[in-house]
Amino acid sequence: MGTKTTCRRLIKAPASQMLVVACIFMLLVESSAGSKARHFKWDVEYVFWSPDCIENVVMGINGQFPGPTIRAKAGDTVVIDLTNKLHTEGVVIHWHGIRQFGSPWADGTASISQCVINPGETFTYRFKVDKAGTYFYHGHYGMQRSAGLYGSLVVDVEDGRKEPFHYDGEFNLLLSDWWHESVHHQEVGLSSNPLRWIGEPQTLLINGRGQYNCSLAARYSNSSSSQCQLRGSEHCAPEILHVLPNKIYRLRIASTTALASLNLAIGNHKMVVVEADGNYVTPFAVDDLDIYSGESYSVLITTNQDPSNNYWLSAGVRGREPKTPQGLSVLNYRPNSASKLPASSPPTTPAWNDYAHSKSFSNKILALMGSPKPPKNYDRRITLLNTQNKINGYTKWAINNVSLTLPPTPYLGSIKYGLRHAFQQNSPPESFSNDYDVMKQPVNPNTTTGNGVYILAMNTTVDIILQNANALTANVSEIHPWHLHGHDFWVLGYGEGKFDPKKDEKKLNLKNPPLRNTAVIFPYGWTALRFVADNPGAWAFHCHIEPHLHMGMGVVFAEGIQHLTKIPQEAIACGLTGKMLMTANHN
Amino acid sequence: MGTKTTCRRLIKAPASQMLVVACIFMLLVESSAGSKARHFKWDVEYVFWSPDCIENVVMGINGQFPGPTIRAKAGDTVVIDLTNKLHTEGVVIHWHGIRQFGSPWADGTASISQCVINPGETFTYRFKVDKAGTYFYHGHYGMQRSAGLYGSLVVDVEDGRKEPFHYDGEFNLLLSDWWHESVHHQEVGLSSNPLRWIGEPQTLLINGRGQYNCSLAARYSNSSSSQCQLRGSEHCAPEILHVLPNKIYRLRIASTTALASLNLAIGNHKMVVVEADGNYVTPFAVDDLDIYSGESYSVLITTNQDPSNNYWLSAGVRGREPKTPQGLSVLNYRPNSASKLPASSPPTTPAWNDYAHSKSFSNKILALMGSPKPPKNYDRRITLLNTQNKINGYTKWAINNVSLTLPPTPYLGSIKYGLRHAFQQNSPPESFSNDYDVMKQPVNPNTTTGNGVYILAMNTTVDIILQNANALTANVSEIHPWHLHGHDFWVLGYGEGKFDPKKDEKKLNLKNPPLRNTAVIFPYGWTALRFVADNPGAWAFHCHIEPHLHMGMGVVFAEGIQHLTKIPQEAIACGLTGKMLMTANHN
Repeated sequence: MGTKTTCRRLIKAPASQMLVVACIFMLLVESSAGSKARHFKWDVEYVFWSPDCIENVVMGINGQFPGPTIRAKAGDTVVIDLTNKLHTEGVVIHWHGIRQFGSPWADGTASISQCVINPGETFTYRFKVDKAGTYFYHGHYGMQRSAGLYGSLVVDVEDGRKEPFHYDGEFNLLLSDWWHESVHHQEVGLSSNPLRWIGEPQTLLINGRGQYNCSLAARYSNSSSSQCQLRGSEHCAPEILHVLPNKIYRLRIASTTALASLNLAIGNHKMVVVEADGNYVTPFAVDDLDIYSGESYSVLITTNQDPSNNYWLSAGVRGREPKTPQGLSVLNYRPNSASKLPASSPPTTPAWNDYAHSKSFSNKILALMGSPKPPKNYDRRITLLNTQNKINGYTKWAINNVSLTLPPTPYLGSIKYGLRHAFQQNSPPESFSNDYDVMKQPVNPNTTTGNGVYILAMNTTVDIILQNANALTANVSEIHPWHLHGHDFWVLGYGEGKFDPKKDEKKLNLKNPPLRNTAVIFPYGWTALRFVADNPGAWAFHCHIEPHLHMGMGVVFAEGIQHLTKIPQEAIACGLTGKMLMTANHN
Repeated sequence: MGTKTTCRRLIKAPASQMLVVACIFMLLVESSAGSKARHFKWDVEYVFWSPDCIENVVMGINGQFPGPTIRAKAGDTVVIDLTNKLHTEGVVIHWHGIRQFGSPWADGTASISQCVINPGETFTYRFKVDKAGTYFYHGHYGMQRSAGLYGSLVVDVEDGRKEPFHYDGEFNLLLSDWWHESVHHQEVGLSSNPLRWIGEPQTLLINGRGQYNCSLAARYSNSSSSQCQLRGSEHCAPEILHVLPNKIYRLRIASTTALASLNLAIGNHKMVVVEADGNYVTPFAVDDLDIYSGESYSVLITTNQDPSNNYWLSAGVRGREPKTPQGLSVLNYRPNSASKLPASSPPTTPAWNDYAHSKSFSNKILALMGSPKPPKNYDRRITLLNTQNKINGYTKWAINNVSLTLPPTPYLGSIKYGLRHAFQQNSPPESFSNDYDVMKQPVNPNTTTGNGVYILAMNTTVDIILQNANALTANVSEIHPWHLHGHDFWVLGYGEGKFDPKKDEKKLNLKNPPLRNTAVIFPYGWTALRFVADNPGAWAFHCHIEPHLHMGMGVVFAEGIQHLTKIPQEAIACGLTGKMLMTANHN
């Protein structure tokens, strides 16, 4: 596609010389900028793997877990021919953080941006990575992310450009959590009455590697855990970060956990945060970093500690009472042996419910000077109340009392072609009742399912107030990291209790709010976001905790779909759009 | 569909009075025959269930396992609106033994007769049950049958007709085998190099009920198994057959095992076999009955034993060294308590490798006088060598050295529309090398995958010689029950060693061979079948052992597809047929 294809067509077709000249010029520009298409051929299939030294079935790509890392330069086009080699399951892959300007059908969300790729079929994802940063990709159908379908996507700056910070080397750390029970089993439990919750993860993984029922750091603890016996070649052998003393390293850290909010720290080393979700931030130093599912960060570390030692890198659970041992990795100062255990025990994770610590960290994240600023005013404000509810006895999560159940026909096609029976045509509620007490359990916990869409006017500025509340159990309000597809948003602020426009509006940060694609709501709090609906497509906005989304915790935005001239047939060749395309020739 | 719909259309359309009169007449005939449409609304979804007292995830229908029993009368039209409520898996259901005359798109075979039904979608199966008998239904995608997707389908004789035997009551027994490991896990093992075999089943189930790790009959045995403690209301509580003394009962017995060949016996009671696979046979009495996966039988028992006792009904493994305890059920002579244990231990299953016993049983099965006779001559003979092979180190089963891998586009549509890229256009081999030694391991064990089709000329008579051989291991040749879709075949005979036309042809039974849809090949033997290719459609013919089919042990026949005037779009709205229907308006 792109310039080359268009030009080839133009050159073949009767065209004015001017056009041909323009084309040649465009081709030159394209190649002079150094951007190119990067092709990948991937097979998705289950493999036996031992992420935490316990063998299990994992959803892999090309026989690997995690999937291969994609590395590209800003401006490149990434092309992935994805073949589904599963036996009975459909599959899609979402490119988390990539905005998919002009390619909303490549966003990889089942029921929203495309039909699932059925077994034996190949779908080509083709999209531009327009912005340098730390991203990742993952399954976005059922709970296939939890099944292991994920990997890293790193976009470097264009040739000739520089990052606004210096580093001598870099490492890529993809964090996840792991259960021994299959996701199929988990899904049945989540859809059962009474609910069977998935429980806490058995293991935390760093680049798909963790240890179950033993500890790499057992020698420091008084606990009963035994020292892990690793031969070094196992799937579960820890990631080792080999560094030289007195250098600066960039750690790219992303979390694709199904559930766990994490805190990451490195023994003795401060971390300077420089990037969040593919956007530069004003650098700030921390001892530890909170990272929620769906987020990514770059931090710089300086290897200025005693070079005769190695140091632990540790990830532990926040926001829920931790029942899962820390995930560990080793910062190995060369020429020490990588297997030399660090002199001190791994850094301790801050208390799981020390929300002041978490909020303090979140509030430090501010845009780097020169970053795009938010419009001063919003055109539409949507307030989204997050509650846990019941429907016919089944436990659900709901937004403004509607629990999302996705339709079989993807919105992108059904909106484009005005298929009114494909989903509920009324817009979901813009807000919730004024007298709702977010500090108490829902008085009437019953809710409804729904699949309506928030249709956003093209190029308008939308404010979202994410409002947290008490869950079904008294005195419980959970953390939810909300992720927006197709856009970055500015995080205008976090607050306590119910958002009060009169009081809270003026506290919002319109000066240097960070651009992100994921933001958390703290227990009993609110988070204010602003974005411009400038990307024609149908976009999920949802809690990135996989079982929460499975239980209905999401909404769908759509804008400017009428501006899309041609949606590839293969993206919408199912359900009611498939039927429509078959009964009338729409080519 | 059928007469009513056609008539409605005719009556609406400008039509001659003659036609209208004819229609009214046909409607009268239809209703006077008492045949009707029987509607079912089914949801397929995973449920927690304890088939053998151990909780697991089972593929159920409308929250039940096994699925609901369909009961209809010969001539009825069965209509099932099947909704897929699974989260990420497609689904189809095959109506085992129903020939689907005029409705080949309702045969329920993924990649052959239809596209899979994707999550959230509904597909309507509509087909005529034209012949009274004992049938069943089951998933036919991946290994979803093993996951529990099955149930019974019983067709009674038309009103005013009688069965050619008398009975006072009847029971329906659906036999299956059960593993604790999920089928997803099993599938990965079967697709791995080296092969990880699924092993023997943990439990045998009768109507979805069995007991793991305890025995209903422990009190009789010297073994270490403990007596099962059942409260009677569990999923795994045994099926009780409540009978009155001195009556005749019909037991409808069908086997949908994934692997196990079974032998069924009832303490002290002889069984008179009267039906096999929906066809009447010359009655014969046996003490025990061999039943292979894919087969069904009706037997008559007379409750003429000591009425103060109850009696065990027992199913045990044949053909493989049994590592699975017998499945048990109780014949409860009323008014004895159902929980009164029988006076003697359950009947002993004949030695697993007593093939003489098995062959003797198979050879007793002969058509009832008056049954359709086979054509005297065949038009085409296809000899199918069954071997275990390797492909790039992966263990497969192959037929004439081709291991079947199904294409994503169903044959029914791709053949109809001449889509030559949908599958290999060359016909698979008609036979195998003359000098192949079926008694030895394959000299060159390597084989190829393939998805070619045997195109049969319409209304020709086809002979199939199923030829067994040595597997990859020396001195091993396994039992394979082959099942044909869309037709019954006559079983002309069984023989030892390699089929030799000169010697063996004259031994074939053309006088009263039984009509069946499933027939076994014994170790190192051959089985000769004959059928008339009289049913336009694409039809699977395969080993009914689920992991064997998964490993490639099947072929596809197709005949008369050009005679099909309209294949419902929803059956072929995927893959290359879907694409074709979208690029050209074929309505």
